[in-house]
Amino acid sequence: MKALHFEQENSVLPPAVFEAVAEIPGLELEIVKDWSSLKQEELLARIQGCDILIASRAPYVPDELAEHPGKLKYICYVHGTMRKVIGLPIVRSGIQITNWGDQAGHALAQASLTLLLAVISDLHSRIVAVRGADGRHIISEGMFISHLNVGVYGFGFAARKFVKLLQPFGANIRILDPYVDKVPDYCHRVDSLEDLFSESQAVVIHAGLTPETEKSVSRELLAMLPDQGVIINTARGAIIDQTALFDELRAGRLRAGLDVLWPDDLSDDHQARQWENLIWTRHRFGGKAWQSEGVEGVLRAHKLTLDNLRAFVEGRTLDFVIDEARYARMT
Amino acid sequence: MKALHFEQENSVLPPAVFEAVAEIPGLELEIVKDWSSLKQEELLARIQGCDILIASRAPYVPDELAEHPGKLKYICYVHGTMRKVIGLPIVRSGIQITNWGDQAGHALAQASLTLLLAVISDLHSRIVAVRGADGRHIISEGMFISHLNVGVYGFGFAARKFVKLLQPFGANIRILDPYVDKVPDYCHRVDSLEDLFSESQAVVIHAGLTPETEKSVSRELLAMLPDQGVIINTARGAIIDQTALFDELRAGRLRAGLDVLWPDDLSDDHQARQWENLIWTRHRFGGKAWQSEGVEGVLRAHKLTLDNLRAFVEGRTLDFVIDEARYARMT
Repeated sequence: MKALHFEQENSVLPPAVFEAVAEIPGLELEIVKDWSSLKQEELLARIQGCDILIASRAPYVPDELAEHPGKLKYICYVHGTMRKVIGLPIVRSGIQITNWGDQAGHALAQASLTLLLAVISDLHSRIVAVRGADGRHIISEGMFISHLNVGVYGFGFAARKFVKLLQPFGANIRILDPYVDKVPDYCHRVDSLEDLFSESQAVVIHAGLTPETEKSVSRELLAMLPDQGVIINTARGAIIDQTALFDELRAGRLRAGLDVLWPDDLSDDHQARQWENLIWTRHRFGGKAWQSEGVEGVLRAHKLTLDNLRAFVEGRTLDFVIDEARYARMT
Repeated sequence: MKALHFEQENSVLPPAVFEAVAEIPGLELEIVKDWSSLKQEELLARIQGCDILIASRAPYVPDELAEHPGKLKYICYVHGTMRKVIGLPIVRSGIQITNWGDQAGHALAQASLTLLLAVISDLHSRIVAVRGADGRHIISEGMFISHLNVGVYGFGFAARKFVKLLQPFGANIRILDPYVDKVPDYCHRVDSLEDLFSESQAVVIHAGLTPETEKSVSRELLAMLPDQGVIINTARGAIIDQTALFDELRAGRLRAGLDVLWPDDLSDDHQARQWENLIWTRHRFGGKAWQSEGVEGVLRAHKLTLDNLRAFVEGRTLDFVIDEARYARMT
């Protein structure tokens, strides 16, 4: 079986992954360098000559493959969201597609819990006080998560992982997701944003951005949170009425941990940069796996990629297969 | 049955707790105001006349009660460490003593996880960059806890809770505690500090301070951690060779989250206050439970106090009974 990959500048895949791919029994890996000079027909022909395409940020996978796949049966896409690289015709064709699966969900869940813990213990104020040799004795409000009423808005991959991380703290977890029937037995399901906000001390946003969710976290909902209540958002900035949230933060009434804003930046002189009741991580809450030798040192996402390639070669079922419904939900 | 309490200025016990105590069937609660003018004999006589003493920071419980307890059978102490209020003769007498149990353990476990997550995602640098409108693109090293080798030094209450909080992240957890035979099945036991440090990317200290542990985290052990390795300490500052750790931090080689130092403060102009690879929370990683109405709003510690008082009245077994061994281990 033959797998093709177009070499990437600054590849997210560490060399150890390619070494491991090349060692999969029954798989021959070809890495195409300098592919940017290839004509569209040549690109198409190269892909048609292979069983597997290991696809990354570029090039765009030709839509013609939907009708004329040649030998191509599987596109192993090594990132999450794929609209800019893989079109709907391919998704609707018989070619199997997988992505990096729940890697992003894991990273976002960790980001949400980090921000929740940091905000609820006023780490921004503590750091500013220490740097300024300022002797403020900071006693954080509602700091013990074992007593916290936490509302989770949206219950996809990231939220599912987040509640698993939160569970051993003993928080009271309420979940709102109109498209989800069942929640874990240690959580409660609520039916409206009003119920979620009126009963929560902290609300964690893991919803997707849709016309329905856009600006759905309104001024009225924010007003339902108690003083020093907390908003955490690692999903999309546009889900929140940001003017309303910033009014609450400027007044010192609420606290927030935001990885995302809308628009997704603040001017250099924006006063929100100084608000100690806000931790803003600039949509950059990313990081690297620890530098370790070999495959053990790669990210979970890369392990999934490897597992799927092995599974395909051995004729087993793939994980995180992208169908039209999942493709449509991608942000 | 009669319970006595000497009123405290700035009591840690919210009124809701006293209201709930007064409502325990079969219990009569007397709160003594202005007790500071009482003579020692009067104080002793008042305590001897009651079955239960709900003891707090003051007054010192007279040692004479060990030999002459009168009616006193139970001292319900509402804090943790008690040497300044209750002497060894009382502990050795037949009078039962309980304390607030695992409240501190819960708080310390949350503090350790908060610091671990904050340090490993370089929150100090991120906050400084945002405040200074500094466009640094911060990519944290070894950020994904699902890949982290975490060493836990000491396995008492706080550490036990900490590993429960860490478990759903999927970290590889190694534990060193020569006095503990069994660790949870998702953890590994190691036998020496050398094994712990050489195999860990982050080490979390939950050991007690004893002659054996003092400065046990030595320069040699710290050197075994990889670049950007992490030390978290919410236990006691003197467990670490702080000069060695500060050398590593000054050089930018390690990262740390420290609630405690030795001595437990930094001068106003100490350069460590500016180190972005250090988060220092000044032995003040405390907070309040959320302000809620009634007993539901009180801390876990206060619920334990109430549960023990009810259990005593009903003749049931008490939780967190202090014996001589536990008393000796108190810091």
